[in-house]
Amino acid sequence: MSRKIVKSKHFFEEDFIEAIGEVSTEKYKAWEPNDKLKVIGKPVSRIDGYDKVSGSAVYTFDVNLPHMAHARILGSPYPNAKIKKINTKKAKELPGVLAIITSNDEPKIPWYYNTTFLFDSHVRCVGDEVACVAADTDRIAEDALRLIEVEYEELPFVVDAGDAMKPDSPKVYEWGNILNGKPGIYSRGNIDDGFKEAEVIVEDTFSTQVAIHNPTEVHCSVVNWDDGKLKIWDSTQAIFGVRDQIAGSLKIPESDVRVIKKYMGGGFGSKLEAGKYSVIAALLAKKIGRPVKITVDRKQMNLIMGNRPDSYQKLKAGAKKDGTLTALQHYSYGAVGAYPAGAGCSWPLRALYKCPNVSTEEYDILINAGRARAFRAPGHVQGTFAFESLIDELAEKVGMDPLDFRLKNYTKVDPVSNEPYTSKLLKEAYQKGAEAIGWYNRRKAAGVGKGNLKTGIGMATQIWWGGGGPPAYATLKLNRDGSVQVIAGTQDLGTGTYTFIAMVAAEVLEIPLNKIQVSLGDTAVDPYCPSSGGSTTAPSVSPAVRDAAEQMKAKLINGASAILELPEEQLKYQNGIIYNSKDETQKIEISNVVQKMHERVLITTGARNENPKGYQANTFGAQFVEVEVDIETGKVRVLKVIAAHDIGRVLNQKTLENQFHGGIIQGLGYALMEERLIDKNTGKVLNINMHDYKMATIKDTPEIQVIIVSKGDSLLNYTGVKGIGEPAIIPTAAAIANAVYNAIGVRIKSLPITPDKILSTLYS
Amino acid sequence: MSRKIVKSKHFFEEDFIEAIGEVSTEKYKAWEPNDKLKVIGKPVSRIDGYDKVSGSAVYTFDVNLPHMAHARILGSPYPNAKIKKINTKKAKELPGVLAIITSNDEPKIPWYYNTTFLFDSHVRCVGDEVACVAADTDRIAEDALRLIEVEYEELPFVVDAGDAMKPDSPKVYEWGNILNGKPGIYSRGNIDDGFKEAEVIVEDTFSTQVAIHNPTEVHCSVVNWDDGKLKIWDSTQAIFGVRDQIAGSLKIPESDVRVIKKYMGGGFGSKLEAGKYSVIAALLAKKIGRPVKITVDRKQMNLIMGNRPDSYQKLKAGAKKDGTLTALQHYSYGAVGAYPAGAGCSWPLRALYKCPNVSTEEYDILINAGRARAFRAPGHVQGTFAFESLIDELAEKVGMDPLDFRLKNYTKVDPVSNEPYTSKLLKEAYQKGAEAIGWYNRRKAAGVGKGNLKTGIGMATQIWWGGGGPPAYATLKLNRDGSVQVIAGTQDLGTGTYTFIAMVAAEVLEIPLNKIQVSLGDTAVDPYCPSSGGSTTAPSVSPAVRDAAEQMKAKLINGASAILELPEEQLKYQNGIIYNSKDETQKIEISNVVQKMHERVLITTGARNENPKGYQANTFGAQFVEVEVDIETGKVRVLKVIAAHDIGRVLNQKTLENQFHGGIIQGLGYALMEERLIDKNTGKVLNINMHDYKMATIKDTPEIQVIIVSKGDSLLNYTGVKGIGEPAIIPTAAAIANAVYNAIGVRIKSLPITPDKILSTLYS
Repeated sequence: MSRKIVKSKHFFEEDFIEAIGEVSTEKYKAWEPNDKLKVIGKPVSRIDGYDKVSGSAVYTFDVNLPHMAHARILGSPYPNAKIKKINTKKAKELPGVLAIITSNDEPKIPWYYNTTFLFDSHVRCVGDEVACVAADTDRIAEDALRLIEVEYEELPFVVDAGDAMKPDSPKVYEWGNILNGKPGIYSRGNIDDGFKEAEVIVEDTFSTQVAIHNPTEVHCSVVNWDDGKLKIWDSTQAIFGVRDQIAGSLKIPESDVRVIKKYMGGGFGSKLEAGKYSVIAALLAKKIGRPVKITVDRKQMNLIMGNRPDSYQKLKAGAKKDGTLTALQHYSYGAVGAYPAGAGCSWPLRALYKCPNVSTEEYDILINAGRARAFRAPGHVQGTFAFESLIDELAEKVGMDPLDFRLKNYTKVDPVSNEPYTSKLLKEAYQKGAEAIGWYNRRKAAGVGKGNLKTGIGMATQIWWGGGGPPAYATLKLNRDGSVQVIAGTQDLGTGTYTFIAMVAAEVLEIPLNKIQVSLGDTAVDPYCPSSGGSTTAPSVSPAVRDAAEQMKAKLINGASAILELPEEQLKYQNGIIYNSKDETQKIEISNVVQKMHERVLITTGARNENPKGYQANTFGAQFVEVEVDIETGKVRVLKVIAAHDIGRVLNQKTLENQFHGGIIQGLGYALMEERLIDKNTGKVLNINMHDYKMATIKDTPEIQVIIVSKGDSLLNYTGVKGIGEPAIIPTAAAIANAVYNAIGVRIKSLPITPDKILSTLYS
Repeated sequence: MSRKIVKSKHFFEEDFIEAIGEVSTEKYKAWEPNDKLKVIGKPVSRIDGYDKVSGSAVYTFDVNLPHMAHARILGSPYPNAKIKKINTKKAKELPGVLAIITSNDEPKIPWYYNTTFLFDSHVRCVGDEVACVAADTDRIAEDALRLIEVEYEELPFVVDAGDAMKPDSPKVYEWGNILNGKPGIYSRGNIDDGFKEAEVIVEDTFSTQVAIHNPTEVHCSVVNWDDGKLKIWDSTQAIFGVRDQIAGSLKIPESDVRVIKKYMGGGFGSKLEAGKYSVIAALLAKKIGRPVKITVDRKQMNLIMGNRPDSYQKLKAGAKKDGTLTALQHYSYGAVGAYPAGAGCSWPLRALYKCPNVSTEEYDILINAGRARAFRAPGHVQGTFAFESLIDELAEKVGMDPLDFRLKNYTKVDPVSNEPYTSKLLKEAYQKGAEAIGWYNRRKAAGVGKGNLKTGIGMATQIWWGGGGPPAYATLKLNRDGSVQVIAGTQDLGTGTYTFIAMVAAEVLEIPLNKIQVSLGDTAVDPYCPSSGGSTTAPSVSPAVRDAAEQMKAKLINGASAILELPEEQLKYQNGIIYNSKDETQKIEISNVVQKMHERVLITTGARNENPKGYQANTFGAQFVEVEVDIETGKVRVLKVIAAHDIGRVLNQKTLENQFHGGIIQGLGYALMEERLIDKNTGKVLNINMHDYKMATIKDTPEIQVIIVSKGDSLLNYTGVKGIGEPAIIPTAAAIANAVYNAIGVRIKSLPITPDKILSTLYS
C-alpha cells in the first residue's frame, strides 16, 4: 500500500498527497480519474426522481394498512415534575379510542441510563412522554389527549447550561447536572510550555445556540404484529440499528423485528436511533391487535426529537511571530438536555492544524429541556465557528493573511494520532477556493468602504471523518435478459443513495443505468449495511457494490470462457459483451452467458474492504464566503459561497452538489437566524413551529460554487469515495462570521449573527 | 457416488435400493435418518399458522393501495366468434369508469402462438377476453361490463374432442384441431412381437372428464407502476416466471418488473404461468396512472383459468401366463381447449413396470373451450386410472393377485431411459400398504357379499418425477443475537414452504425454530428459486437452504477458531455453541462469534447441487383403498385410504400428511363427482360455480393413513428430499376404481364413477 506523490505546479510549494492510479488493496485496481470513467462522476438525475415528483414514492406516512389505528403522544407541560396520578377514564370513554398506555402500565421498559423508563413517572422536560392514545383516527387520538387528567407535582427546574453548572442549581438528576460527573479532557504536549513559547496570544469567548434538525418529514412509524413478529415502517437513518434497539427493548429476537424504510424526507441525525414513539406504537399495536401509525408532529419534533446543543467556548491560542502555532486551549460546555448526549466541540481545534501543545476540557450539561442528538457534523459546526474565528483573530494579531496563517500550520499527519492521512488535498482546495472567490483582492482592512452596505470576504476550514468502513454488504443479481438488481441494507435519506448504487454497478458492468434496479431499506431481506450517519453511507456501501459487480464480472468471464472455449486471459469485457480479444467477431452478450450457464439469475455478494491500517481517513475543505452587511439595519446577506473540498472521488456530480447546497444553506440559517428559545421562567420553548423558528429559505440562498479537488482516495476503499453529508455544513457559519468581520470590522462571537447583535456590537 | 444396498428381511425377496448414510455429493455427509435428527421429520406446526388463522396474513386480494382502481374482464358469451365492433361509449360514460381496453387498442401484444393476441378480435371459447374496465370500485367495473356493446359474428364451433377429430368438424384454427398436426409417438422394443409373445391379452377403453383446479383463492393481481417500473402482487406459483413473462410481453427489462407473493390459497398448476389478466391490469394501470387490482371471479376461473383435460384412452396389454408383461399399447386423445396445452397421459404405462415392448400414440385436441393447464400431476392422474385399471384386468385374466402381478413386473431401472433410479423403495411401500389395509384378507372374488352395501379393496401404483434440481438459491443471515433470517425466491402455495425452510436451517445450526424468520416471494430481493410446479419446491429449495446453513456453520467455526485460538478440528459445534472438544468449559455462543468478528450480520448464499448424472429421480407409491358401494343407490363411499409412498426424506410430518390428505381428497372428488359439463348446442359451460360443480368435502373424506418408507434419497441432493405434492393424488382414482370393481364385480371405465354409471353398468 505505497502511495505515489504527485508533483504539482501549484502556487503553494508543498507536495500534494494523491493516490490515484495505485492499487488500493490486493483485490482491485483503483478506478481511473472520473473523466476516464463512463458513469461515475457525471451529473446523473436520481433514478427515484420520478417516484418522488409524481407522488408515487411511499414514505412512512404513506403506509396505510387495513384496520390501522392512529396514535398520539401526550407530552409533559412542565420541565420537571413528578406524575402523581393519571386518570384516563374520560379519554377512554371517547368513542373511537382504542387503548391508552401511561407510566401506570407494566412492565416498565428501561430507556436512558436504565434508570429512566419508556414512560417515566418523573418527567424531565416539556414534551416528555406521559401517555399515548391509540384511536380509530388521528383526530380522535389527539382529542383524547386533552381528556387525560394528569396530576403533576411540579419541581424546580433549570433550562440554561450556565445556570445548571452553578452549585445551587436545581438538579436534573439527584446525582447532578454534569454528565458523567466530570469533563472530557484531552491534552498533548505541555500547554503551559506552549504558551510560554508563544510570542502572540489571543483569547476569546464564543457561544452558539440550540438548533433544531427540522427535516422536511416528521418522525413517523407504522407498526404491525404478525404472530409475535414485528414489522415497522420507520422514517429512520438506521434500519438495522432501529431493529436491534427495538428487539432489545421488547426482548425479542432481532430476526423477529423487520424494519422497512423506502423513502424519507431527511433526518440530519435526528433519526439515527430508535424513537420511544416506535416502541410505544408497538406496545399499543399488540394491545389492540391492529396496526398502528404514530406520528410525531412538528411541535413534538421541536421539543424532544433532538437538537444541536448550544455551546459556551473559551479559547486561547498562542503563536510565534512567524505564525507558527505553539499552543491551543479550549474550554467548553453545552446543554445536552434532560438525557445523555454529547455537546463536545473541541475536535476542530485538536485536529485542524499542526500544533504541539493542546489542551481541551468540555462539559456535557444536563438541563430540563429536550435531549440533544447528533446533528449534521455534531460538535464540529459549533467548534469550527469558534476556533476558525479565533484563528482569524490570531492571524490578524500576528499580521498575516488568514489563509497564509493556515498554510503556515498545515499538517500532513493527523496531529491527534500522528498517523498519516489516506489522502489530504486541502492545499489544493485552499488554492482553488481562494482563486474562485478572489481572495487576494479582498480588502485587507476590515470594515472599510462607503455607504451602508459593507461587503467582506471570509473563509474557514473543515475537517471530518466520513471514511466509512466495514461491515457493509451488497448483493447483485444479474437476470437472464442482462438486467440487474442491487440489494443493500442501507437507507436513502434523500441524498441519492439509490442512484449512486446503480451508477457503481453500471460503471463496472458497463450496462445502461435503466437496466439496474436498486432495493434498499428492509432488514428482513437486505444484506447488512451500517447506519447512515457520520457521512459513512457512500464510502461504506459503494465499495461493497463495486466488489459485488467485480465478482459478477469475474463470474461472467469465467462462464464465457467455458462457453466460448477460450482461456479467460483471452477474453475482453466491454459494454456488457465478452469478446475474444484475438477475434472480436467471436463474442457473447452477458445475458446470453447467464442463459448458457443454465442460470436464471447469477448472484454475488460484495463486501466493503477493511480500512488501511495505520492511516487516518478524513475529509478536508474550505469555504470562502462573501457577505454584504447593512450597517443601518444590521442585516447580513450572504452573496456567494465557494465550497472547495477534498471528499475523495465524486460519485454523482449532481447529488454531490445537492448535498453541498443543502449543507451550506443549513449552515447559513445556523449562522444568521436559527435559534431555539426557552423561557427561563416556565421552561417552555417559545418557538416550536416553523413560523417562529426561522430557517433559511430560497430567498436567503446565495450563489454557491462547489469545487472538488480529489480524484479518488484509492488507499481508502475500492471506489475512492469519502462522505460528503457533513463536510458541507461544517465551515459555513465560521466563514460567514469571518466575512462579517471583514465587512464591518467588528466580530460577532455569538451565533446566530442577528441584526440586533450587529447593531449593538457596532454602536455600543 | 456409489450406493449401498441394504439387505432387508422383507417378505418380498428382492433387495431394496437405499442410500442412507452415504455421502451424497463431495460436499456434505448425508443426514442421518429422521429419528436421529432434531427437527427434520417431526410434525411441526406451520410457522405462518398464526398469520393465517388470525387473518393478518396478506394475500394478494388483501393488498390495497392508495387510489387503487379495480378492473373486471368482459368474457365472450360465444364459443367461437369474430368481433365485428366494440362500442364502449356507454360504459365509459358510467360515473366511476376510468378506462376500458379492448382488441381495438394498439399495440397488440402477442400471446399464444404469437398469432393470437392479449385481446384478439377472434374469440375461441366462452370467457375469452374481450374487454377490460378499470373503475373506482369493483362494482362499477362489473356494471360497466354490461354497458359494453359488442357485435359478434358467430362461427361454427366444436366442444368435444371426439367431434373435433372428425374431418368435417368446425376448425378452432384454420390449420386444424390437432395440436402440431400430429400425435405424440413413443415406442420401445417391437409392439407386434410383444403381443405375439403374449399368452394373455386384454384390451379396453377408458375415459376421464375435464376437472377444474378450483383453488380456494381466485386468481388476482394488484399492479402499480413507479417510474416505468412495474410492481405486481400476484397469486402465483412462479414469481420469477411471471416476472420474466410479463417483462417479455411488455418489452421491459426483467429487473423493472417486481413480482411479490406472500401468501396464497393454492394453485394446483392453474397459477404456474402469468395470466393475461396481470398484463391487462398493467396496461390499465399505466393508462390511468393509478394502481389497479384485478380479480378473476370463480366463474371466469372455471371458464378460462385452466383445467385437467379429459381423455379417451384405448389400452392393450399382453403377458405370459406367469404374469410377465410382454407388450403395452396406448392410444389416447384429450381436449386441450382453444389454446396450446398438453393432454398426453401415457407416461405411467411407459414407466411403471418392466416391459420390453411399448407403443403409445397421443393427440392433443383443440376445441372451443377454456384451455387446459398443468393440474396436479398432469397426465398421470388420468393415465394411471386407465392403466392401473387395465393391469387389474390383466392380473385377473392371468389369474394372479393384482399386487403379486405388479411385483412380478417390478423394475429397478427406469424402463424408458434404462438408467437406475436414485432410489426406489416401492416394494417396501407395497408391503406396508398391503399390511395396513389387510390386503391378503380381501375377498378374492369381486362382487360377493350380502345386502345392498358391498365393500371392496383396490390398489394402484404411482410414479412421478419431483426430484427438483438447480438453479435454486437461499440466503441466510445470522444476526448478532443469534437469530436467523432465510431468504429465498420460492413461493409458499399454502403447502408449508416457510416452515420447512426454517426447519432445515434449525437442523443444521441447531437453534430453536422461533429464532428463524423466512422471507419468500419477492423477485426484487430474493435469490432465484424455480417455479413451484412438478413437486419440485422442497427438493430444489431445501438443499440450497442446507448449503447456506452449512456454509454459515463453517464460517462460525472458522471465526471461533480465530477467537478461541484453537484449530478448527478441535472445535465442536452443538446447539448453537462452539466448544473446545478437549475442554468443554471453553466455549462460545454463535451470537458471540458474530459480535467478536465485528460483524452485525453474517451472510451466506447456498445453492442446490447438480443432480447425479446417469440416474433418474422419481417418486413411487401405492394407495390401497377400501370402498363401500350401495348397489341400490349406486353411491360409492370411500372408507379408508392407505397411502404408502417413497418420496424421499420427510421434512415435516405434519405438512406432509396435509399434502397427502389434500391430494387424496382431491383424487376422491375426481374419481366420484367432479366434472365440467359443456352444452354441445351452445358451447356454454353448465356448471361454473361451486354449487353446480361438485367437489369433495369433509363429509366425503375417508380415514387416511400415510406411510412413508424412505429415510432420504441422499444420492439426489443434500437433504434427500423428493416432492410430494403430486404423488399424493396420482393413484387415488385408479385405486378407488379397482376397489369398486372388487366390491361389485363390474368395472366402471369412465370417470367420475357416479351412481348412474354404477347402476346402469350393474343392471344393463
